[in-house]
Amino acid sequence: MTDVGIDAAEFRSGKLKLDLAETFADEKDDDPAKYTKGLGLHASSFPDAYEDIVTMAANAAKRLMDRKGLAPEDIGRIDVATESAFDHSKPVSTYVAGCLEQVYDGDFHHANKGERKFACIAGTQSIDDAVNWIAAGKNRGRAALVIATDTALYERGDPGEATQGAGAVAMLIDEDPDLTVIEPEQGFGSADETDFLKPNQQFPSVDGKRSMQVYLMRMREALEDFEMQTPTHPDDFALVPFHTPFPGMVRKAAALGYRHVARDTDVEEELAEEIGRQPRPEAFDDEEAYRDALKEYTDKLTETDLYSEWYSRTIEPTLEVSAQVGNWYTGSVHVARIGGLKHARENGIDLDNEQLLVCSYGSGAQAEIHAETVQPGWEDEIAALNIDDQLVERYDISWEQYEQIHDVHNHDESTDIDAYTTPEGEFVFDGWGRMGERKYTYVE
Amino acid sequence: MTDVGIDAAEFRSGKLKLDLAETFADEKDDDPAKYTKGLGLHASSFPDAYEDIVTMAANAAKRLMDRKGLAPEDIGRIDVATESAFDHSKPVSTYVAGCLEQVYDGDFHHANKGERKFACIAGTQSIDDAVNWIAAGKNRGRAALVIATDTALYERGDPGEATQGAGAVAMLIDEDPDLTVIEPEQGFGSADETDFLKPNQQFPSVDGKRSMQVYLMRMREALEDFEMQTPTHPDDFALVPFHTPFPGMVRKAAALGYRHVARDTDVEEELAEEIGRQPRPEAFDDEEAYRDALKEYTDKLTETDLYSEWYSRTIEPTLEVSAQVGNWYTGSVHVARIGGLKHARENGIDLDNEQLLVCSYGSGAQAEIHAETVQPGWEDEIAALNIDDQLVERYDISWEQYEQIHDVHNHDESTDIDAYTTPEGEFVFDGWGRMGERKYTYVE
Repeated sequence: MTDVGIDAAEFRSGKLKLDLAETFADEKDDDPAKYTKGLGLHASSFPDAYEDIVTMAANAAKRLMDRKGLAPEDIGRIDVATESAFDHSKPVSTYVAGCLEQVYDGDFHHANKGERKFACIAGTQSIDDAVNWIAAGKNRGRAALVIATDTALYERGDPGEATQGAGAVAMLIDEDPDLTVIEPEQGFGSADETDFLKPNQQFPSVDGKRSMQVYLMRMREALEDFEMQTPTHPDDFALVPFHTPFPGMVRKAAALGYRHVARDTDVEEELAEEIGRQPRPEAFDDEEAYRDALKEYTDKLTETDLYSEWYSRTIEPTLEVSAQVGNWYTGSVHVARIGGLKHARENGIDLDNEQLLVCSYGSGAQAEIHAETVQPGWEDEIAALNIDDQLVERYDISWEQYEQIHDVHNHDESTDIDAYTTPEGEFVFDGWGRMGERKYTYVE
Repeated sequence: MTDVGIDAAEFRSGKLKLDLAETFADEKDDDPAKYTKGLGLHASSFPDAYEDIVTMAANAAKRLMDRKGLAPEDIGRIDVATESAFDHSKPVSTYVAGCLEQVYDGDFHHANKGERKFACIAGTQSIDDAVNWIAAGKNRGRAALVIATDTALYERGDPGEATQGAGAVAMLIDEDPDLTVIEPEQGFGSADETDFLKPNQQFPSVDGKRSMQVYLMRMREALEDFEMQTPTHPDDFALVPFHTPFPGMVRKAAALGYRHVARDTDVEEELAEEIGRQPRPEAFDDEEAYRDALKEYTDKLTETDLYSEWYSRTIEPTLEVSAQVGNWYTGSVHVARIGGLKHARENGIDLDNEQLLVCSYGSGAQAEIHAETVQPGWEDEIAALNIDDQLVERYDISWEQYEQIHDVHNHDESTDIDAYTTPEGEFVFDGWGRMGERKYTYVE
C-alpha cells in the first residue's frame, strides 16, 4: 500500500489572549500557580468579534493551500471536525469552501464535503476517513483537507472556564506525505459515557472528576486494543502527543500509558530494583486492592529518573504550545503533535523516520491510538509555520473585555461590540443572511 | 479488491401515522390530491412519545443484529448519520451502543463510533466511509453498522409540514455482502448553498423553490462527475433510487437524469423522430435560451412512451414506501433503495447482478451518485423485512393528537402526554439523567 498521511498542517489561533495568571487568577483572587502549575496552562486563545469556527478553519486552510501551491481542483474531500457547530444541518465544510471560493479561481464542486462530531476525537476520525479514502483508491489523485476547528467556551463560572480555547488546525492528507505517515494499526477504547456533553445547549455539562477517570479508562482500553495488533516498548516513540484539555490531564495519562507499555519489557525489569515489579491482577483478592497497588506503583514510577527522562523527552515538548492556547477540543491532539515537532526542530532533534504515538480522546467517550512515522520533509514543513508570531500578536484582553467577548460568542446573547483587533488578509464573519445563515467575506 | 457493500438493511418507522389526505388535507381544507398527487405523499411516519432518533436507530440495529446472528464483537464500527441530533458533542452512536449493550452479552468497547452531519446525504457518506475502511484493510474481519436516523419535523404551519417523517434505516456494511456491492466510482456535485438549513434552531429554514433548483443543479454536477469516470446508458440500471424528500421532487430529478444519461446514445436517436434531438449549448446565443430549450425538450421527453416505460420500471417502485412514510432525511435514499427492491421481489422481477444507480442528496448542498450491483442473496434479505407490518400497525393520529405529539418532540416545549401506543420488545426513551442526557431502557 502507498504511504498515506499528513502532508502539511496549519495552525490558526483565535486572535485574543486571556492570560490565566495575570488576568484570570487575579480576578478570582487565586494563586496563579493553580493554573500555571496545577492545570499547566498559561493562557487561552479567544476569538475576536469577527472570528468563529468558519473563519479560523478557512484562514488555516488558505495559508495551507497558498504555502503548498494548491488549487481547488487538487482537493477531493473537505472534512471539518467540530463540536461548536452553529447549524444542525448544513456542515461547516460548505461554509469553508464558500470562503475559499471567494479568493481562488476554480471551485470545490466535485469535492466531497462533510462534518464529523464526537467531542474532541472527531478530528482524528476525519483524518482516518481521509486516509482510508486514499488507501481504498477513491481519491483520483487528489488530496483531502481535514480541519479541526472549535471555540471551546464554557459557561461563565464553570470550573472548565480556565481551560477554554479557540483555534483551528488544518491538515492536508495525501499520498507520500511530507510530515508523517499514518500507520494502519489503530487501537480503540469506547463506551457510552456522560462525562461531558452538550444536550441542546451551547456550553457543556461537565462531570470533571468522572471526565478524568473516563479519559484514563478509555485510553487504557485503546492501548490494550493497539497492543493486540503491534507490541510496543517505551523507547519506540520519539514523541507521544495526547489530547490535551489541559497539560495536567496529560501528566496522568502519560504515567498510565508508560506503565502499560513498559509491562513485560526490560524497562519493567530495570525499574524493579528501585520500585518493584508492576502489580498483576492475579496476585490480588479483589479489584480494589489491585487498583490501589497500581496507583501506589504508578506514584513511585513517576518519581524515577527513567520515567522523568522519558516524560521530558516524549511528553513535555507536546505541551508547550497547548499551555499557551488552552483547549481547542478537536484541534487539541493536533496542536500537541505540531508542538512536539516544533520543539524538536528548535532543539536540533533529528526525528527523520522516528515514530510518534498519537493518543486521541473524545468525551462521551472514545480513545484512539495509532502510530505515525515522521517523514524527512518534517523540518521544512514545521519551519514554514508562524505559530510564535500568531501567539505573540494576540491581543491581551482585560477581564472586562473578556466578559464582553464571551457574551459576543454566546448564542443566547445579542451583544455586539467593536473588535479588539483589525482584520487583515483574512476571512471574517460579516453578519447574518436572510435564511439565518452566517456570512463571510475576505478582508485584504 | 474484495467486494464490499450492504450485507443487510433494516427499516424502522416511527409508530404513529399522520394521514395526509384524511387528516392533514381535511384540517387545512385542501384538496387531498394536493398531497397525494402533487407531492406524491399519502402519510407521514411520526414518533410516539417514547420514540426518538436513538430508539429508532437502536431498534433497527437490534433487529438487524438478531436476524444476522451478530454479537457486539462482530461490529468494528458504528456510524450514525442524522440532522436531528440533540447534543452538540456526544454522538448518537454512543447512545445506540449503550442501548444494545443492555440486551447483548459483550460490548462495543473496541468499535469506532462516530456521527456525520450533512443534511440528508450523511447516511450515504457514512456508508462510503465504512466501505473505505474495509477496502483499506482496517476492519480486522469485522463489519460496520451504519444507521441513518431522523425525526424530520418542521415548524407548525411551515410549507414543509406536509413532508414530515420519522424513521431509521440500519445497514450492515461488510465484505461479500448479501444485498448490494457498492461500486467504486462516485460522482460529486457540491456547493455552498442556503436552500435549507437549521442555524441554532431545531426546525429548518427552507427556501422551497431554491431547494428544488439546488437539488437539480447539484445532481446534474454529480452526474457529470460520475460520467467522467464511467459512461452510462438509461438501460444500464434496473432501479434508480433518489433521495426522496417527497416523490414529486424525484419526478423532476428523474427527468433531468434520464435526459443527461440518454444524451449521445441510441436512446436520443430513437427519440429524435418524435421530439427532436436534445438542445446543445453551442446552438444558443445565451444561457437562458439554452435553458428554455432544455426545459421544453424535457417536458416533451416525459410525455414519450420510452420515458414513461423507463420511469415506471426504474423510479416508481422506489417511491412506493416513501409515499407512505414521508421524508426520513438521512434515511430517505435508503428507504428508496429498499422500496425498489421490495417491489421487485413482490412482482417476481429478477435483479440478480443487476445495477442500481443510487442518487443521494443533502441540502447545503451536495449530491453523490454511485452504482451498486444487486447480489444473489437480495431476495432473502428483502423477504426478512417487516415493512408492511410496521406500516399497517402504525397508530393513525387525529389532528389534535398530531398537535400534541408535535409539541412533545419540540425542544422548546415541555409537553408531556401519554403515548398512543404501548411499547413491546423495543428500546424506549426513559427520561433525563442528571447531566441532561437522555436515558433509554429496553421494554420486554
